[in-house]
Amino acid sequence: MLTREGCPKNVLAIKDALEALEGKWKLLILFSLASEPKRFKQLTKEVYGITDKTLSKELKSLEANKLITRAVFDSFPPTVEYSITAHGKSLERLMDELHRWGLLHRKKIFGK
Amino acid sequence: MLTREGCPKNVLAIKDALEALEGKWKLLILFSLASEPKRFKQLTKEVYGITDKTLSKELKSLEANKLITRAVFDSFPPTVEYSITAHGKSLERLMDELHRWGLLHRKKIFGK
Repeated sequence: MLTREGCPKNVLAIKDALEALEGKWKLLILFSLASEPKRFKQLTKEVYGITDKTLSKELKSLEANKLITRAVFDSFPPTVEYSITAHGKSLERLMDELHRWGLLHRKKIFGK
Repeated sequence: MLTREGCPKNVLAIKDALEALEGKWKLLILFSLASEPKRFKQLTKEVYGITDKTLSKELKSLEANKLITRAVFDSFPPTVEYSITAHGKSLERLMDELHRWGLLHRKKIFGK
């Protein structure tokens, strides 16, 4: 991978992956939804420190990237629930690898 | 990984990894340095579209993260060369996995 051959198209795919996950909130939201579908208010409590505005923006981005779905239930008042998709779950191997390298990196930088 | 147990410390490592690679330039610079050490001017040519100011900032960030080194040679005029470190090369598996998921993601989003 880290050779100059085949660089442009590989870089494009890698950039796509990084962009789909960028920022500090998306992974936290996906983690929170991995256990079960949740409503907006539940997410604001579980994703500690996020504002309503940011959560709303991040949910839209995750939905556009087909990593979560938004379902509206015809109750009174109507309820909205967010769930992780199969595509969202396909991030598991990448998460594991990010986690592995992140630990290595922490050790290298902070020496622990 | 995608379960709520063990979430905080895993998320921390994942965030470290994402932060070390964030933005669209760092990976392109690492790709460019993977083949051989390069001087600043070579990098500005090879990393297409980057400005001197941004390249300078990104190189400092990569150096702080121990992914590259900067060597000054006592020639006249003095020359400065950037090289990828062993730690930078340790990104290979993560790159492969980002690449794999990125391709999957493109297919999902763009249907190709």
